[in-house]
Amino acid sequence: MTDLAAVKRALTAQRIETPSWAYANSGTRFKVFAQPGVPRTPEEKIADAATVHRFTGVAPAVALHIPWDRVDDYAALTAYARDLGVEIGAINTNVFQDDDYKLGSVTNPDARIRRKATDHLLEAVEIMNQTGSRDLKLWFSDGINYPGQDDLRDRQDRLAAALREAYDRLTGNQRLLLEYKLFEPAFYATDVPDWGTSYAHCLELGERATVCIDTGHHAPGTNIEFIVAFLLRQGKLGAFDFNSRFYADDDLMVGAADPFQLFRIMYEIVRGDALDPAYGIAFMLDQCHNIERKIPAIIRSVMNVQEATAKALLVDREALTKAQQSGDVLEANAVFMDAYNTDVRPLLADVRADAGLDPDPIAAYRASGHDEKIIADRVGGTQAGWGA
Amino acid sequence: MTDLAAVKRALTAQRIETPSWAYANSGTRFKVFAQPGVPRTPEEKIADAATVHRFTGVAPAVALHIPWDRVDDYAALTAYARDLGVEIGAINTNVFQDDDYKLGSVTNPDARIRRKATDHLLEAVEIMNQTGSRDLKLWFSDGINYPGQDDLRDRQDRLAAALREAYDRLTGNQRLLLEYKLFEPAFYATDVPDWGTSYAHCLELGERATVCIDTGHHAPGTNIEFIVAFLLRQGKLGAFDFNSRFYADDDLMVGAADPFQLFRIMYEIVRGDALDPAYGIAFMLDQCHNIERKIPAIIRSVMNVQEATAKALLVDREALTKAQQSGDVLEANAVFMDAYNTDVRPLLADVRADAGLDPDPIAAYRASGHDEKIIADRVGGTQAGWGA
Amino acid sequence: MTDLAAVKRALTAQRIETPSWAYANSGTRFKVFAQPGVPRTPEEKIADAATVHRFTGVAPAVALHIPWDRVDDYAALTAYARDLGVEIGAINTNVFQDDDYKLGSVTNPDARIRRKATDHLLEAVEIMNQTGSRDLKLWFSDGINYPGQDDLRDRQDRLAAALREAYDRLTGNQRLLLEYKLFEPAFYATDVPDWGTSYAHCLELGERATVCIDTGHHAPGTNIEFIVAFLLRQGKLGAFDFNSRFYADDDLMVGAADPFQLFRIMYEIVRGDALDPAYGIAFMLDQCHNIERKIPAIIRSVMNVQEATAKALLVDREALTKAQQSGDVLEANAVFMDAYNTDVRPLLADVRADAGLDPDPIAAYRASGHDEKIIADRVGGTQAGWGA
Amino acid sequence: MTDLAAVKRALTAQRIETPSWAYANSGTRFKVFAQPGVPRTPEEKIADAATVHRFTGVAPAVALHIPWDRVDDYAALTAYARDLGVEIGAINTNVFQDDDYKLGSVTNPDARIRRKATDHLLEAVEIMNQTGSRDLKLWFSDGINYPGQDDLRDRQDRLAAALREAYDRLTGNQRLLLEYKLFEPAFYATDVPDWGTSYAHCLELGERATVCIDTGHHAPGTNIEFIVAFLLRQGKLGAFDFNSRFYADDDLMVGAADPFQLFRIMYEIVRGDALDPAYGIAFMLDQCHNIERKIPAIIRSVMNVQEATAKALLVDREALTKAQQSGDVLEANAVFMDAYNTDVRPLLADVRADAGLDPDPIAAYRASGHDEKIIADRVGGTQAGWGA
Repeated sequence: MTDLAAVKRALTAQRIETPSWAYANSGTRFKVFAQPGVPRTPEEKIADAATVHRFTGVAPAVALHIPWDRVDDYAALTAYARDLGVEIGAINTNVFQDDDYKLGSVTNPDARIRRKATDHLLEAVEIMNQTGSRDLKLWFSDGINYPGQDDLRDRQDRLAAALREAYDRLTGNQRLLLEYKLFEPAFYATDVPDWGTSYAHCLELGERATVCIDTGHHAPGTNIEFIVAFLLRQGKLGAFDFNSRFYADDDLMVGAADPFQLFRIMYEIVRGDALDPAYGIAFMLDQCHNIERKIPAIIRSVMNVQEATAKALLVDREALTKAQQSGDVLEANAVFMDAYNTDVRPLLADVRADAGLDPDPIAAYRASGHDEKIIADRVGGTQAGWGA
Repeated sequence: MTDLAAVKRALTAQRIETPSWAYANSGTRFKVFAQPGVPRTPEEKIADAATVHRFTGVAPAVALHIPWDRVDDYAALTAYARDLGVEIGAINTNVFQDDDYKLGSVTNPDARIRRKATDHLLEAVEIMNQTGSRDLKLWFSDGINYPGQDDLRDRQDRLAAALREAYDRLTGNQRLLLEYKLFEPAFYATDVPDWGTSYAHCLELGERATVCIDTGHHAPGTNIEFIVAFLLRQGKLGAFDFNSRFYADDDLMVGAADPFQLFRIMYEIVRGDALDPAYGIAFMLDQCHNIERKIPAIIRSVMNVQEATAKALLVDREALTKAQQSGDVLEANAVFMDAYNTDVRPLLADVRADAGLDPDPIAAYRASGHDEKIIADRVGGTQAGWGA
Repeated sequence: MTDLAAVKRALTAQRIETPSWAYANSGTRFKVFAQPGVPRTPEEKIADAATVHRFTGVAPAVALHIPWDRVDDYAALTAYARDLGVEIGAINTNVFQDDDYKLGSVTNPDARIRRKATDHLLEAVEIMNQTGSRDLKLWFSDGINYPGQDDLRDRQDRLAAALREAYDRLTGNQRLLLEYKLFEPAFYATDVPDWGTSYAHCLELGERATVCIDTGHHAPGTNIEFIVAFLLRQGKLGAFDFNSRFYADDDLMVGAADPFQLFRIMYEIVRGDALDPAYGIAFMLDQCHNIERKIPAIIRSVMNVQEATAKALLVDREALTKAQQSGDVLEANAVFMDAYNTDVRPLLADVRADAGLDPDPIAAYRASGHDEKIIADRVGGTQAGWGA
Repeated sequence: MTDLAAVKRALTAQRIETPSWAYANSGTRFKVFAQPGVPRTPEEKIADAATVHRFTGVAPAVALHIPWDRVDDYAALTAYARDLGVEIGAINTNVFQDDDYKLGSVTNPDARIRRKATDHLLEAVEIMNQTGSRDLKLWFSDGINYPGQDDLRDRQDRLAAALREAYDRLTGNQRLLLEYKLFEPAFYATDVPDWGTSYAHCLELGERATVCIDTGHHAPGTNIEFIVAFLLRQGKLGAFDFNSRFYADDDLMVGAADPFQLFRIMYEIVRGDALDPAYGIAFMLDQCHNIERKIPAIIRSVMNVQEATAKALLVDREALTKAQQSGDVLEANAVFMDAYNTDVRPLLADVRADAGLDPDPIAAYRASGHDEKIIADRVGGTQAGWGA
């Protein structure tokens, strides 16, 4: 039933963006375990992203995080990336690490701090102008820890004002992606806690504003593929921050905690004809490799997305629809599971070989000696991390 | 700081609607424990609601559930209620107990069943015309149990079509309230699982459509008062189904599981100037008194809402705003908690006495001998329950 | 690395017990959708279990539920089962559907009711004597809905007394399996809510008492395979009630909601050398097929357990240990996932063919015409369900 | 009914231990917002604890955390504390911040690292000998992030070996408190994830080993007061780490998120006759004051525990038992809630006045100018935090 050539074309065309900060040190509030060979500069992070692309062939863009990736000359950085074979992807803002933001950034009760935070958003748009980035990705840690600490509704008004200002600065093909998160670092109420809040703001902002789904940012039991399907129906799904979790925002490798969920998410993408890069969804990783080697972890994550996508593409849509329409619960589920239970690794090995890549990116990376090389080379200086 | 007279006026004006089905037998999938004295007819359920109003003074409306409360002559039923001192409140539809609805009602893949379900919605509007009810309350159990069982997005299209048809039938001051629920009875995906889905549909329907928040229908950790504040800001909060829960949709007495949460919810109502009946929010109970006596349980529930409201009204808003604006986290929280920690039972006893009521409704009910009377009177016939 | 012949032997020796009540009607508190062809007697339920065994070859026992499966002559029932090729498995008690049990059974504050409930446990032991069953499976719905409703600690004392009395009645190879469940039907506190409580009671009872894990009875985020590993270490894991869930005790087909979790659970069984029937763990299903056809749903469930087991057996233990010992996080996870990502359906088809079975049990069942036959035959009478 | 004099005596005798690290800087993985006036040395932390005791009168002990509070001369530190009016409380170990502990401490696959971690436990016992501390409090961050990363059961064996070695080193009145935590920093499996695991290990260790309940370390929906009641019944509840949470291990001020839950917990303590310091439970705070001023936050936390305790003591036990025994669900709940709804602040003000304290500790602290003084005095040096 399935057109295997079409499946291969779709897999070949797939694009996954990796985040500069996932190559840097990360950790929990208890400890950041530094790793040898970690990048010390934005350029070295970009080089790592290029390495992942070199082995996978589907990761041709790297997202930046400002101020962690702040440089004097963004044009030069962009050129540097291009020389290595990757583009600059989304520009991520950071309004949570300055001492001023203790009680919030764009929703802070203090107008001066809101101004400062909003200016940072505008700075990010300017960086987009210089790097040619399409996407302004906004995640706000804003929220409160204690009931009564601040007024929930006033904070929404302040948020709307800042979003409006940033949105109005966008030009050309630029877009605003509004991420949501249930909790952390705010522990009682977060100002953009769920997709509904993000959606409502995006709707008010206009067409350039869409929702970004971070797969680790939901309450327990949330059906993420439902949100995917719903936002696609509304034309408001703009991006993913992929990762996986067993508990909270664990930021594990995507597909590591619940590969079946990832398959279901990718199925909704395929079913909504939204896989093609032309549709405009930014499929990004946003992970923390606290204890595992970072580059191969990101290669593995890219492969996990590919495998889930391949399975989603293999669903026999005709048979599925027939079973669904006839109310045959078991058969519909069986058709769906049949694709999931398929071992798609040989198929992806073929796709890679056709693209001139090693069919086993992890083995190829291990064999390349690259890990040993960066450990040897990157000595001295200050390793990049969430705080730098 | 607080204007005590204004607080009393607000508490006197408060209105809480009770549901006819809460007076009937209910239970879990494991067992329905029948209780003596339970109503056998819609009229007896209305009589019980009138009893609750007689002792509390703030429960002058009773919601009906169709077909459980189906009668031949709705005008007569309405008159009967009015004679007992209560109005007919929201009309609740039931498209989950007919054998046809095994795989869904308005979202069923079978067009015939969708037609039947939609017709039921239209019947409910006709009952509203006959009873003078303002509110059409829609809760859909629709959803699927297994991944792949049906197409998530198609079901949204079907849902939208049915909602549109019912909405377009509304006239005068009639409104549509769209309830959401995370899960149960559907165990993989529910078609209206969260406030965002309900909000998006209501927005598309138009001004008469608003969201109904059932306080037991959320994922663990969901901040309900945030949803209240947000929907008030968007002008889309239409109603509450009050109850409480420790785990899932436990349907315990409101305020029993987390009285502090109920206070925070009522604070957002007060802060949003939405307590007054003129604002238009229907504050309804939707509970199951599986093991406790039903009428006193509902009296207790009404009192719990009153107590939470009284505390919310006592928050020193001026002091709170000052602390919030100055970023004094501890002081803002302290102002908030000061109201919560106040024992408002004497204040409510005063409010009741001023209204000519017994200051202790539970004791008054116990002393009245009413419980013994209905147990003695209501012998024979078929007790009302969820299935009848 | 893996010894494929040993894998096949293990899969051939595997035993999965099916529950008589899963062949009967079930539903939610909202509605039980009756299905045509459902058994009307314990004998017909046993016949359905025999059918499942005929197509899968690994389900040679059927658990009974008293009083749902109460008969006059248990010896005759046992012989009837044996004639059909199945044994009587665990005897499940029911102390939650009598009106007396509204506030609890063995933990009820009323001594008369506790006596009655305990006597039911003793009756179950007597049925074990007559049927030759090894396992007394105890699940108590006991708990309370409201804080203060009863004394948490007193209830533990009452529970311990009843358990002791039942335990002391056991003879020969008989065992007591104590199941735990977080909530439902009790909505505030359940008397055996978690494995720790069950474990502590079993420890006090003695060697014949072990814990039964129902895979749907945990709080969100609970790591079930950890519990499996831990109880195996303590020598106190006696049984599984398999099913799957996305939210609460959804009782979906095992493996349907999270096949990766089922694999991880079966891996701990394999790693603990506890798969062999001689080890003594009762691998039982406990599911509700509310909307899907029951017999094929149970066949599918059995196959899901087989597939998870096959993957668990395929884990390259030597490579895994090497990666674990060397602290290679990515490699250890990769070895583990390599087994999970394998398509084991061909392997299981071989195992079935070797056993003289159709390699595709679902297709064989569909082709057999059995479903149509029972629908035609089982007309009239009262269908079995949870209440009968 | 209630003996008010006895209630006051119990409140006067109550003891709450505060943790040295709560006076230091803390934060989330996203940012630590440093506060002015934060201690720079163990001595300054102890001085802050003494300040809390001076204003509350019920916090006469301070827990230490090694190595954060490591000093050359523990006898001198103990004398310093005693001079300020406080004792050294529990000694907390830290085997999670050394680079060696990336993959675990006492459960690490590497024997050298296990040795190092176990030696740290023994060092802590030696510090207990020098400070006269009774309690060795063990929290292990040990766990794994990815399925397959390490062997779950081997890790239990390693854990048991280390616990045994530390336990056997205890002398005199020394005790071992084993804390559990569902997740964080480990994101797939934690080696002591729940009370059952801690209980089983404590049971194997012996009488000196008891469970420590951190109120923020549970899965959503866990009934903590049940665990309290159960462990009291088993004689194995040794300590609390009090804090509160809406989501994960939020470490907010105890009583801030769910004051009703705190009341229910304290009721089980009162009901189990375990409030008296002579019973031996260590009631400790373990919180993070990331955005609020630390000393007044801890004063407030102590007061919150006092208020919950006062309410618990006010429960009319005789009336409660009567209602429980007669199966009057509503009355039993009403008796329980009557105590909770009481405003106990006047009672506690009396208790404080009787003890020669200011009846309003927060106001008294604010008026004392102490906050301004430490901000002015503690300039320069390195502020204490989780990493120092």
